Amino acid sequence: MQADFVLLPGDGIGPEIVFQAKRVLTTVAAAFGHEFRMTEHLMGGCAIDACGNPLPDETLEACRRSHAVLLGAVGGPKWDDPRAKTRPEAGLLRIRRELGLFANLRPTKTWDELLDASPLRREIVQGTDILFVRELTGGIYFGDSGRRPHASGEEAWNVMTYSTGEIERVVRLAAQAARGRRGRLTMVDKANVLEASRLWRQVSESVVKNEFPDLQYNVVLVDAMAMHLISKPRDFDVVVTENLFGDILTDEASMLPGSLGLAPSASIGSGGPGLFEPIHGSAPDIAGQNVANPLATILAAAMMLRYSLQLEQEAQAIEAAVNKVLAAGGRTRDICGGGEYLSTTEMGDRVVQALA
Amino acid sequence: MQADFVLLPGDGIGPEIVFQAKRVLTTVAAAFGHEFRMTEHLMGGCAIDACGNPLPDETLEACRRSHAVLLGAVGGPKWDDPRAKTRPEAGLLRIRRELGLFANLRPTKTWDELLDASPLRREIVQGTDILFVRELTGGIYFGDSGRRPHASGEEAWNVMTYSTGEIERVVRLAAQAARGRRGRLTMVDKANVLEASRLWRQVSESVVKNEFPDLQYNVVLVDAMAMHLISKPRDFDVVVTENLFGDILTDEASMLPGSLGLAPSASIGSGGPGLFEPIHGSAPDIAGQNVANPLATILAAAMMLRYSLQLEQEAQAIEAAVNKVLAAGGRTRDICGGGEYLSTTEMGDRVVQALA
Ligand SMILES: CC(C)[C@H](C(=O)O)[C@@H](O)C(=O)O
Ligand SMILES: CC(C)[C@H](C(=O)O)[C@@H](O)C(=O)O
Repeated sequence: MQADFVLLPGDGIGPEIVFQAKRVLTTVAAAFGHEFRMTEHLMGGCAIDACGNPLPDETLEACRRSHAVLLGAVGGPKWDDPRAKTRPEAGLLRIRRELGLFANLRPTKTWDELLDASPLRREIVQGTDILFVRELTGGIYFGDSGRRPHASGEEAWNVMTYSTGEIERVVRLAAQAARGRRGRLTMVDKANVLEASRLWRQVSESVVKNEFPDLQYNVVLVDAMAMHLISKPRDFDVVVTENLFGDILTDEASMLPGSLGLAPSASIGSGGPGLFEPIHGSAPDIAGQNVANPLATILAAAMMLRYSLQLEQEAQAIEAAVNKVLAAGGRTRDICGGGEYLSTTEMGDRVVQALA
Repeated sequence: MQADFVLLPGDGIGPEIVFQAKRVLTTVAAAFGHEFRMTEHLMGGCAIDACGNPLPDETLEACRRSHAVLLGAVGGPKWDDPRAKTRPEAGLLRIRRELGLFANLRPTKTWDELLDASPLRREIVQGTDILFVRELTGGIYFGDSGRRPHASGEEAWNVMTYSTGEIERVVRLAAQAARGRRGRLTMVDKANVLEASRLWRQVSESVVKNEFPDLQYNVVLVDAMAMHLISKPRDFDVVVTENLFGDILTDEASMLPGSLGLAPSASIGSGGPGLFEPIHGSAPDIAGQNVANPLATILAAAMMLRYSLQLEQEAQAIEAAVNKVLAAGGRTRDICGGGEYLSTTEMGDRVVQALA
């Protein structure tokens, strides 16, 4: 098949790791007889530098016309000034909204070979396999906000809003995913305090009851979930939650495998192009040194083939190649535990070889 | 000295553990020549059962007239119906607000003897000593909220609001605490997304710059903090944050010592009576069995003497007694690691003996 992918290398280590993912995609295309057309565009700090806008119109248009978007990472201290007119994050929030990417999927799995790098004890964390589904285009991230004078100085506010429809679609997506996994769905909220959470609870319960009665369904408060993720991570299968809670909980969970450099994420919506990226940041401190771990981006490319093109076999081929390289002891610096390590390019080579 | 304490045993295991703390307070009073007058009042589910109100006026008035309030725990499945007119949590939120308890202090310390119960690896967690200061009477917990019709059904909303004054007072309190500790203050926000967080960042920076230039001060985003708490908990001294972030992060942190049954918390404000309680819940599943761990409540009583009456020596005497009992191998069921254990009453006995 033919497919158009937009690559957004972004900032920091972004270009290096996206380059390796590109090589892997080229290899897969050749091996399976596809034609993947990949074009690079500016987003993030580099786009601010080039044209004062973290998400230039030209980039957004290219994304809209594509089958899917692969993002490296955006941001860095250079663009961190709180008084700046715009910042890389603004581009990220806008692309999510513009492409209607209402669900962020983050598989959180431990790798047996790397378990000693987890901050958690092996007995607790081994075998963890959670799929987080974070609502990504609603809630307090996108509600009204502002400032007004106050007797003590100023007052600042943000509004968290959710509608029945916004909750339904993401819960449905999560429930469908649970069906294809171990059949368990956990919904996380703060219904003992927040009205928005009470609507989540009500809508979520009715979606599950009416459309997914086969699932094992439970609800957990967000503060309790922050505890359970550390104390009994194996208890969870699919976890669905609103935007802000999802931001915090998925980052907490990202520590469990002890290898941030291996975790991909997919942001998808109702049909258009999805956005695929590693969950780690732009790591400006190691940018350009050829030591960054490209595996999370490579695994994000696998998710891209799976979710955007239904190329399940090709996705599995990439995942198997990564597994093979890790099983053979291939490590980048972040996961080498002080031992020998491969450069970014060498790791790319290994995955490409394993695919061949 | 003479002091009036209100005891709010609450629900579940609350009465059993508060009873042991009461014995300890009586012992301290005798040993140091004080007169502690302690009266019990209803709050939580038991108050709903008795008079339909989780915080009866009579209880609130007694609290106002007291020097300090010691709370067991409130809540339980019996009062969990989301359609109920009122719930135990409502009493908790109201007492915080009515007594002006804008700062919740949660010391998070590991106990060397109990480290094997931590879900984190010893090398990572040993020596952790963090004081969380959570803003407790503002933000999205107390902002406007409601529902309105929406094309897809309904829309629910909550408003997160903070004023300069609300931020100043709690940051000041946290900064003062940092001065008495290792001199480090971390402020946690989500300033890359939320306007309320941007005000936090601005106000906090100016308080520290103008009044506490001697402190080492840094800011961390809430999602990053959820990661750091697990990967490098020893890096933090005092951590200050807004209400909702504090709720999630303090619960996450509560897992680190591996012994929820030992962690106390203090909610204080600008001078009136403070509220002291264990951080664990009412544990209805083990209520009335004489197996609950009373140590967190006993340590909350120590915090009460320290913060409400400046009885530092007496507070330390209690803490030393608890240390002594633990060092001698005294364990309740929750921390016995499968070995022998003491009942709630026996643990109370031990602490009382150690004090003598
Ligand atoms: C950069 C920031 C706006 C973003 C978020 O909070 O959504 C990031 O933390 C993430 O999780 O992708
Ligand atoms: C019971 C609930 C309202 C409360 C809160 O969220 O503040 C609790 O979780 C706590 O942390 O004391």
